[in-house]
Amino acid sequence: MATLPPWLIVDPLLQQWLQEDLGRGDRTTQSLFANTPAPIGQAKLILKADGKVAGLPLVERVFQLLDPQNFKFETVLSEGSSGQPKNLIATMTAPLDILLMGERVALNILMRLSGIATMTAQYVEKIADLPTQLVDTRKTTPGLRLLEKYAVQVGGGQNHRFGLDDAVMIKDNHIQAAGGISQAIALVRQNMPYPLAIEVEAETPEQAFEAVTAGADILMLDNMSVAMMTGLIPQLREKNPRLKLEASGNITLETLREVALTGIDYISTSATITRAPWLDISMKITA
Amino acid sequence: MATLPPWLIVDPLLQQWLQEDLGRGDRTTQSLFANTPAPIGQAKLILKADGKVAGLPLVERVFQLLDPQNFKFETVLSEGSSGQPKNLIATMTAPLDILLMGERVALNILMRLSGIATMTAQYVEKIADLPTQLVDTRKTTPGLRLLEKYAVQVGGGQNHRFGLDDAVMIKDNHIQAAGGISQAIALVRQNMPYPLAIEVEAETPEQAFEAVTAGADILMLDNMSVAMMTGLIPQLREKNPRLKLEASGNITLETLREVALTGIDYISTSATITRAPWLDISMKITA
Amino acid sequence: MATLPPWLIVDPLLQQWLQEDLGRGDRTTQSLFANTPAPIGQAKLILKADGKVAGLPLVERVFQLLDPQNFKFETVLSEGSSGQPKNLIATMTAPLDILLMGERVALNILMRLSGIATMTAQYVEKIADLPTQLVDTRKTTPGLRLLEKYAVQVGGGQNHRFGLDDAVMIKDNHIQAAGGISQAIALVRQNMPYPLAIEVEAETPEQAFEAVTAGADILMLDNMSVAMMTGLIPQLREKNPRLKLEASGNITLETLREVALTGIDYISTSATITRAPWLDISMKITA
Amino acid sequence: MATLPPWLIVDPLLQQWLQEDLGRGDRTTQSLFANTPAPIGQAKLILKADGKVAGLPLVERVFQLLDPQNFKFETVLSEGSSGQPKNLIATMTAPLDILLMGERVALNILMRLSGIATMTAQYVEKIADLPTQLVDTRKTTPGLRLLEKYAVQVGGGQNHRFGLDDAVMIKDNHIQAAGGISQAIALVRQNMPYPLAIEVEAETPEQAFEAVTAGADILMLDNMSVAMMTGLIPQLREKNPRLKLEASGNITLETLREVALTGIDYISTSATITRAPWLDISMKITA
Amino acid sequence: MATLPPWLIVDPLLQQWLQEDLGRGDRTTQSLFANTPAPIGQAKLILKADGKVAGLPLVERVFQLLDPQNFKFETVLSEGSSGQPKNLIATMTAPLDILLMGERVALNILMRLSGIATMTAQYVEKIADLPTQLVDTRKTTPGLRLLEKYAVQVGGGQNHRFGLDDAVMIKDNHIQAAGGISQAIALVRQNMPYPLAIEVEAETPEQAFEAVTAGADILMLDNMSVAMMTGLIPQLREKNPRLKLEASGNITLETLREVALTGIDYISTSATITRAPWLDISMKITA
Amino acid sequence: MATLPPWLIVDPLLQQWLQEDLGRGDRTTQSLFANTPAPIGQAKLILKADGKVAGLPLVERVFQLLDPQNFKFETVLSEGSSGQPKNLIATMTAPLDILLMGERVALNILMRLSGIATMTAQYVEKIADLPTQLVDTRKTTPGLRLLEKYAVQVGGGQNHRFGLDDAVMIKDNHIQAAGGISQAIALVRQNMPYPLAIEVEAETPEQAFEAVTAGADILMLDNMSVAMMTGLIPQLREKNPRLKLEASGNITLETLREVALTGIDYISTSATITRAPWLDISMKITA
Repeated sequence: MATLPPWLIVDPLLQQWLQEDLGRGDRTTQSLFANTPAPIGQAKLILKADGKVAGLPLVERVFQLLDPQNFKFETVLSEGSSGQPKNLIATMTAPLDILLMGERVALNILMRLSGIATMTAQYVEKIADLPTQLVDTRKTTPGLRLLEKYAVQVGGGQNHRFGLDDAVMIKDNHIQAAGGISQAIALVRQNMPYPLAIEVEAETPEQAFEAVTAGADILMLDNMSVAMMTGLIPQLREKNPRLKLEASGNITLETLREVALTGIDYISTSATITRAPWLDISMKITA
Repeated sequence: MATLPPWLIVDPLLQQWLQEDLGRGDRTTQSLFANTPAPIGQAKLILKADGKVAGLPLVERVFQLLDPQNFKFETVLSEGSSGQPKNLIATMTAPLDILLMGERVALNILMRLSGIATMTAQYVEKIADLPTQLVDTRKTTPGLRLLEKYAVQVGGGQNHRFGLDDAVMIKDNHIQAAGGISQAIALVRQNMPYPLAIEVEAETPEQAFEAVTAGADILMLDNMSVAMMTGLIPQLREKNPRLKLEASGNITLETLREVALTGIDYISTSATITRAPWLDISMKITA
Repeated sequence: MATLPPWLIVDPLLQQWLQEDLGRGDRTTQSLFANTPAPIGQAKLILKADGKVAGLPLVERVFQLLDPQNFKFETVLSEGSSGQPKNLIATMTAPLDILLMGERVALNILMRLSGIATMTAQYVEKIADLPTQLVDTRKTTPGLRLLEKYAVQVGGGQNHRFGLDDAVMIKDNHIQAAGGISQAIALVRQNMPYPLAIEVEAETPEQAFEAVTAGADILMLDNMSVAMMTGLIPQLREKNPRLKLEASGNITLETLREVALTGIDYISTSATITRAPWLDISMKITA
Repeated sequence: MATLPPWLIVDPLLQQWLQEDLGRGDRTTQSLFANTPAPIGQAKLILKADGKVAGLPLVERVFQLLDPQNFKFETVLSEGSSGQPKNLIATMTAPLDILLMGERVALNILMRLSGIATMTAQYVEKIADLPTQLVDTRKTTPGLRLLEKYAVQVGGGQNHRFGLDDAVMIKDNHIQAAGGISQAIALVRQNMPYPLAIEVEAETPEQAFEAVTAGADILMLDNMSVAMMTGLIPQLREKNPRLKLEASGNITLETLREVALTGIDYISTSATITRAPWLDISMKITA
Repeated sequence: MATLPPWLIVDPLLQQWLQEDLGRGDRTTQSLFANTPAPIGQAKLILKADGKVAGLPLVERVFQLLDPQNFKFETVLSEGSSGQPKNLIATMTAPLDILLMGERVALNILMRLSGIATMTAQYVEKIADLPTQLVDTRKTTPGLRLLEKYAVQVGGGQNHRFGLDDAVMIKDNHIQAAGGISQAIALVRQNMPYPLAIEVEAETPEQAFEAVTAGADILMLDNMSVAMMTGLIPQLREKNPRLKLEASGNITLETLREVALTGIDYISTSATITRAPWLDISMKITA
Repeated sequence: MATLPPWLIVDPLLQQWLQEDLGRGDRTTQSLFANTPAPIGQAKLILKADGKVAGLPLVERVFQLLDPQNFKFETVLSEGSSGQPKNLIATMTAPLDILLMGERVALNILMRLSGIATMTAQYVEKIADLPTQLVDTRKTTPGLRLLEKYAVQVGGGQNHRFGLDDAVMIKDNHIQAAGGISQAIALVRQNMPYPLAIEVEAETPEQAFEAVTAGADILMLDNMSVAMMTGLIPQLREKNPRLKLEASGNITLETLREVALTGIDYISTSATITRAPWLDISMKITA
């Protein structure tokens, strides 16, 4: 199941997005209702393509921020469920101007997150019967990391670290700067807050063995062939049975399964975020 | 040419994004340089796919916000130019820890905007010899509207309105709420701040004629067939020679040119933003 | 009728203003009620001069932000209505400390906006039987533009653009920088987001004709004599029947009507904002 | 001499005001310079009416925030000096787009503050040879209190308290709530931070004597006649020679001097802020 | 009795603190309740040492910000009362995840403020039968001044000024910069907002007499011996019977009473804030 | 060595703290220099007690934020070094008003952090020859966590997690909510982002064994006797040689060493933050 951060964390984002769209006010809608208060109306969220819905709690919250008292939200498709064109996702009741002012922000975040969840689910499905897990990366749209990673969860994927501060990741540039893998691990262990996991990126078997010996908790095998990984993984596990292994680099929907069959613990890909088209969803005012 | 808003407007976004990624600090990089100051290093931005580069001023600004004094930036590919895999985009000089801490945010925005510019250019190219212009919509990633629309400009497209407040757009829901197109236009004209253009969405020729008669400045022909538009456009222009006409709805790279050949002024599409994959670009520390 | 932006846009201003006045707390009021909770009290808003009331929804909101649960507000004079000294405007009920802590901010915004509405109404009245409309300018108190322009609406005026981004206005300095009116219009049309209206400031008939020919949507006749405008306006309308014409510059309450009689569409003045004294209103605690 | 708060306090206001005017960018100016960088230009600030200039440091800061590196500012009229129509106030050099983008915000604050300083100076001049000082009130435009009170200083006036927290002011409503003046003073003294001065508003001689006896530091004589004050002031000073006395309520430019001749220490008026028209100043680009 | 600023002032601090602790979310708690909504639970706040409780309204507010609808709070020990180990302070009811997510922030502020109130009460008790009052200083934890000074009030102390702007304090460095005490007082009186009290720090009897003569409202006797103060105070009071006298500098719990016996009005100490250990309090989930 | 987060993260805190102290401006200092610009002055930071200095980079930054151009800072005692009363810590040069306006904020953060570093060093010294490391907790002053944990580093301690999101900590309340340790670990592992370490709090040997079996990475032995830990630790390490062990609960300076001798990896204590008095440091203007 997927978890959103508390609203206290998410609300400032939603408010920023509403301000971005509203600017100094909705000239069209507010002009229509300048003389009389807007009547209560009803709107339907309707799916227009095959996919998995993600972001419904955010849609609800967007309208609550605009009108804490009058907005009502009834979902037909629950968060994370899959649907087809013309499926009714949810029904919303609120003053008409509220529905019109919140429409675009609500749909934009819903379509974006649903697009991610949909593509993630396509990847996850390929390896659903295997113990390997699909994880994301830090390639996320600036400002949306919390929510895009939430969409990955909804799609059945798992999250990698959320930022530069909740895990250590030693990459080629770090190794070069430190003068070697062992030195880098030693420096990090000495200076980091203690409970963080240390992940090291290895491009060759030699690097992989050095990292395991030096105490890496997680090893990312970067751009290695399936053959190489098949041979390497058992040897690495022998050296440290608790070692976690991650494959990364140019893994596609087509190659995903064979990589998983190497016995790797995690496959990380940015594609479900950086290549996912939005899922088409519309809002229709019905009354 | 494309124009970014003044830094005073953009900086708060960049700072928010750096805070999102850095969290409480870069555990890896800062641990490596805890004992000695990071030496000056050099990094190269390298293109890894065919495409058009957009966002270089933002890359420069991200690193300047991290280190206003020591960062230097030399571009080889200029903003908006096209390139191929292995092309050098730019060279950056700064203390190594600054380069490592800013890398992800800088690349994320550069890859996202370049992806949009690249797809926009593909669309624009199809109609480059025609007077019709390609425009975007308000389907933009929440929080990134200013910059995603900038990327559309870099790709050769033009922007539609930036929010609910810089133009009036009367859509089906508004028409229904007002009791008709003429009534909606009258209400809006009465209550809106005066210099705004009024655009009306028409789904049928009847709606189109009513809107023009009622004084719409721009008419969006929504989901009409090429045949219908071909017949309709000259009649509409006759009624108001200054009328601007926009086609919208399910227009693809394949159908784009035939729509343009109807003589329409604008074709709007959300695809260049909602369906554009990121352009692959990497940063390599070289010294 | 006048429209305020959604509270999501206005609330941050009201909170800032309450923080400005409260600082670290209301030493007087909070000291009085340090030992016992403040009892529920009642206060009356009373008009102390002839004028038009604007800002009542903001008064209500100020106190709601201080005490969302206990504040009650009953208006006797509705927003936009005119009154005389001693007229009761509204009755408010809340704990006494809430009434005392919000008093100054609520009155300051109410008196300022009512002053603007009152002076605007004086101007509008002079031309109420004519089709010409009175509009404001961007000469507004920094930070208060949204609300001062709202007060202009309450007074019966119309708003000109709200910022540098919701319409194009080509002034003398822009013309000089571009090397001429036609060049300026061409550059703007090429680079601006498309739905914006283009207004050009003309100081001579020659400039006016050049601007119309080049496609200006709105023409501001700056500091022209009534005689000159009387002759010029029909000729300009002949060239473009949809052209909007605006007179500006040193127009006073005395000269307003004769300017309107030229057939101009809009008369813009900053006076109703920059020269309006506050309308005197007091708050009296009655129980 | 007048003192502004440190820039760390003022800058957030200036940034907010620039964002208010710029919105998503200056469509006119940025379109003109979309193809080529704006050249360095020069602008002159010119006085267009008789008055006293206040706000020049803010004008300088506004442009520095837009362009910290290229803006230059040379004043001819110094802050607080008086001038006449056509007087050159200052010359500014910066890229033309910077000058155009900052113009309105800079002028708006300069004209508003100069208007206040000008009217304050008119009041102060009437009593310049007397020991009585003119002070302001908390009737200030929301959001501008720091700067409007600064303008009062520039005009030769003195500031009363800046908010509800930097002095105690016991008014009629407080007295009523506490059950009397002595009780109110006792409660306040018991609960407030100790270095604050206690001012009490007295509407009758009886209230005045009670307040002095109870230990008020400052006494505001509210709406008393000149005759009454002339008799009362010596008696009050006899009871406490260090007592400060303030006259308030309906004091105009005409009655100001006779009130001062009563020997009162301070005369407070909101008129120099709530009734001051903006001083007319223009910016002219000259090269 | 102690007074907190209005929530409008305090809430931004509490939100900042919750964001500091929650970061991107509570990984532990939210993982436990990812599959099923958290049930309503109950928690008890229990005192684990002797002391005085301060901060209960803040505890209540922290949880209300997390869950405005479901949180309930019943206090057994009221704010400011003293207790012993194992005393039940309060019972809280809310969904279990809310209780777990707010626990640390709520306890941290409660323990910190209770520590200050406890130590303040120890000081105050020593001089409770004397007219001398204990006051705090500006040595407060950055960001917590409002609340730490509130805790001093709860402990029975009084607050000195809250910042550099709500009273004038002329110290040795200011005297040196101005060229003498009289000059400093004259400059300050000329330029400051008038209702502020002027306090002067005197290190010698000569400085004390000069300050009183020059019109200081409050005199701080800095680091003077009890013998010196005993002789000096009556002489100073003779020169100005309304003068307030404050002793400061290296006053401990042991020397406090003898200093108070000199007849001084105030004794200021930073110890109750800078040397107070947190009071131990725990939260126990009981159902 | 200790590492601070990038200034982009820390600056907003420092600005907030300066605003807290400055309020609407420094009435004393700014009044002294209202007529003439403040001359350049010099100030010395002087240690007044035995201790370890922490926070010098923050002192430097505070003054840079007030005056980016003129402030100079030369340290004599380097960050983290120990000193005695009268030791010169650093010399600062800046306009006198800048030195006076920044003094209190700079000293408050320096004294607070130095107090923490000093007490941490006392603890660390007791076990410096042993492999056990001293770690902190989340009992930190609200708003200061980043900097108080930095001070722990300066004192030679190590940081535990910085928030609820950078490690998992399963405590008694979580165990109860999940229905047991194994269930809690399983739920967390299933739902958390993968790279986080899982720490479990065990109050009994049975809980400890269950947690290790269920796969805990770190085990906190809560309030166990030295004897119990001595027996338990080897058995636990046998089950998982990579297991990290932490002792917690009522460990004092006196008992610290005997706990460390059990072979525990970490000893966590909140005392170095919650019980540390400020280190006395003064600023003296010398020219």
